Amino acid sequence: MKLKIEQLNLSHLISLVAKAVSPRSPKPALSCVKFSAGEEGLILDATDQELWIRSSSKDVEIEYPGEVLVDARLIEEIVKNLPKSDVQIETEENKRVKITCEKSKFELFTQEVEEFPEFKPPNPQFEFDLSPILLRDMLEKVMFSASTDEIMKNLNGVYIEIEGKTIRLISADGFRMALTEKEIATPDIPEQTPYMGFLLSLRSVREISRIIEAGEEEDKMHVIYDGKKIGLELNRTFVITQRIEAEFPDYKKVLPEGFKTKITLPTNTLYQSIKRIGVVAKPGSETIRFDIADNIFQISSTSSDYGNSKEEMSIEKEGDDIAIAFNPRFLLEALSRVDDENVTLSFIGPLSPTQINPATLSDYEFIVMPIRM
Amino acid sequence: MKLKIEQLNLSHLISLVAKAVSPRSPKPALSCVKFSAGEEGLILDATDQELWIRSSSKDVEIEYPGEVLVDARLIEEIVKNLPKSDVQIETEENKRVKITCEKSKFELFTQEVEEFPEFKPPNPQFEFDLSPILLRDMLEKVMFSASTDEIMKNLNGVYIEIEGKTIRLISADGFRMALTEKEIATPDIPEQTPYMGFLLSLRSVREISRIIEAGEEEDKMHVIYDGKKIGLELNRTFVITQRIEAEFPDYKKVLPEGFKTKITLPTNTLYQSIKRIGVVAKPGSETIRFDIADNIFQISSTSSDYGNSKEEMSIEKEGDDIAIAFNPRFLLEALSRVDDENVTLSFIGPLSPTQINPATLSDYEFIVMPIRM
Repeated sequence: MKLKIEQLNLSHLISLVAKAVSPRSPKPALSCVKFSAGEEGLILDATDQELWIRSSSKDVEIEYPGEVLVDARLIEEIVKNLPKSDVQIETEENKRVKITCEKSKFELFTQEVEEFPEFKPPNPQFEFDLSPILLRDMLEKVMFSASTDEIMKNLNGVYIEIEGKTIRLISADGFRMALTEKEIATPDIPEQTPYMGFLLSLRSVREISRIIEAGEEEDKMHVIYDGKKIGLELNRTFVITQRIEAEFPDYKKVLPEGFKTKITLPTNTLYQSIKRIGVVAKPGSETIRFDIADNIFQISSTSSDYGNSKEEMSIEKEGDDIAIAFNPRFLLEALSRVDDENVTLSFIGPLSPTQINPATLSDYEFIVMPIRM
Repeated sequence: MKLKIEQLNLSHLISLVAKAVSPRSPKPALSCVKFSAGEEGLILDATDQELWIRSSSKDVEIEYPGEVLVDARLIEEIVKNLPKSDVQIETEENKRVKITCEKSKFELFTQEVEEFPEFKPPNPQFEFDLSPILLRDMLEKVMFSASTDEIMKNLNGVYIEIEGKTIRLISADGFRMALTEKEIATPDIPEQTPYMGFLLSLRSVREISRIIEAGEEEDKMHVIYDGKKIGLELNRTFVITQRIEAEFPDYKKVLPEGFKTKITLPTNTLYQSIKRIGVVAKPGSETIRFDIADNIFQISSTSSDYGNSKEEMSIEKEGDDIAIAFNPRFLLEALSRVDDENVTLSFIGPLSPTQINPATLSDYEFIVMPIRM
């Protein structure tokens, strides 16, 4: 392999794929980026065997084709620091790769190319286009609710459902659940698309979000799913991930019904109040209390370490009075994702799940379990 | 005590003093900020008994005077989150303090005011004015070279020397030393100022830097020193710290003399080269090698894990050829503080201290010990 590519282009390609590398793999090949030069230009691959990221560029001069495996952290750091000039990459007989840029010369050890796993994209069984910005915004609305405990495989991710032209994302950690749904705006999705539901790991969706971030507003993302693997292609970057073979809870059963109390109030006012009043809550067991009586909504907190805090606001209430307590962080994380001037809180009782949703939109819903007072 | 003050003003005051609080003191009073309302307005004090920060504002309506001790972390967080409106603070009979801002009410526990140490400013034995910006820039130029090991009391700080109209700051950690000196620009320093030299802890100088950051370009800082304590006053903020009673090494003995080799080259070019070439250096025992022969300067690095790297540049050399190795981080940290287009490197030999200084200015000097090859 011998090729020439611009430093900025190469640095961008490496940064796209390097996040798929497993940082401490017992298999040295998995801590590498694979470079393949051929008719398709320069293709870079990285994987930890759960997540695969491939990115490529045709903007490269290939003198002769070939492949090489280079330590990902090392090559990323080197290329980032090279002058903004042409970078020449050349494999040598002694299993080394030579990188030259202006007066800088690097000779790096490489791993056996054969040790790198084989690239297996999903079969194009179901495929459709999706707005990457739409997907990123939806992920941002639910990801925070996923469990960060990797042992709880079925909650450590985002469940994605596609039903007709609707895409729905759900995350839950046992104490709360966030759900968002949108129409898939592109007309390319076939009307007869069968129901699809699959769970992706939190790690995979974080990387998908990051790759979308590097894209442009008007880009289209192509999605391929074969019942086991999901592939997403954006520009010339391809992310492949396995569906998690664990059962996501039946979220429809969790959605509360038969509310007894409903209040609607300005989203930001509520957010700021909870933030302020919650400062007094005892660290480690934060609790904030809501008392809704007649048209007064009181938010308060008490801790044996610090003292107490309270604040009142006038509200329009539907239904019964209620006293209920929550973890303030859960409320703040949900409220910061409500894209509506006003927010509706719907209560069943002090021990039942409470629903938080935008007052005028129906695209987002957050369910939180109260804390027993 | 009962008073009214603007939220922004109070929040700023608290953030200035709160850094002097000791985060996990066995004495609860030392985790508090002391509020004192009286003829001087509102005075806030915080200390960990090594460092004392006092700040005050006259922009306050005092209904009746008094004092109270409130947990620093708590009051800082509460006030930061209050609406931008007037804040009322009132002490209550039950040893609580009531904080009210619009519809928010906080009742916080307090500590006994008597438990707080007594404020003892230094005697105005020696005093002069100093440009805070000058002091901050000088601190920034040397602080990185101080030892971060709190056990090594004599190196875990910055040594400050005042000799006539010259102020000199020095930090060293046993492997390197940074020195900077300037003329004190203000005419207020008496010609007959005796020699002063004192060591301040790294923690104290970091807080001094931070407080200067909050000030304005044209501010003047008043310095008082009584041989034991140093007080610095900037606007209405007063920092008092003890000199460290440990002997700082005689830096004049460390300054190398009788150079055998001198090269001068563009500061940024050298910085970028070292950064690039150093990527290949083995993490944990980073080494970068300089080979200076005739008019060629080669920078290289080799590691048994990654491979090797090298780069050459043409230079004008005075004196002998030399081969010498360094920790690249030490060089980068020094070079990033050279405010000159060109930098001069002066060598004695491969085992002797090397000097790095701006090519045309004489205000900064960095000494680094080489690594045995």
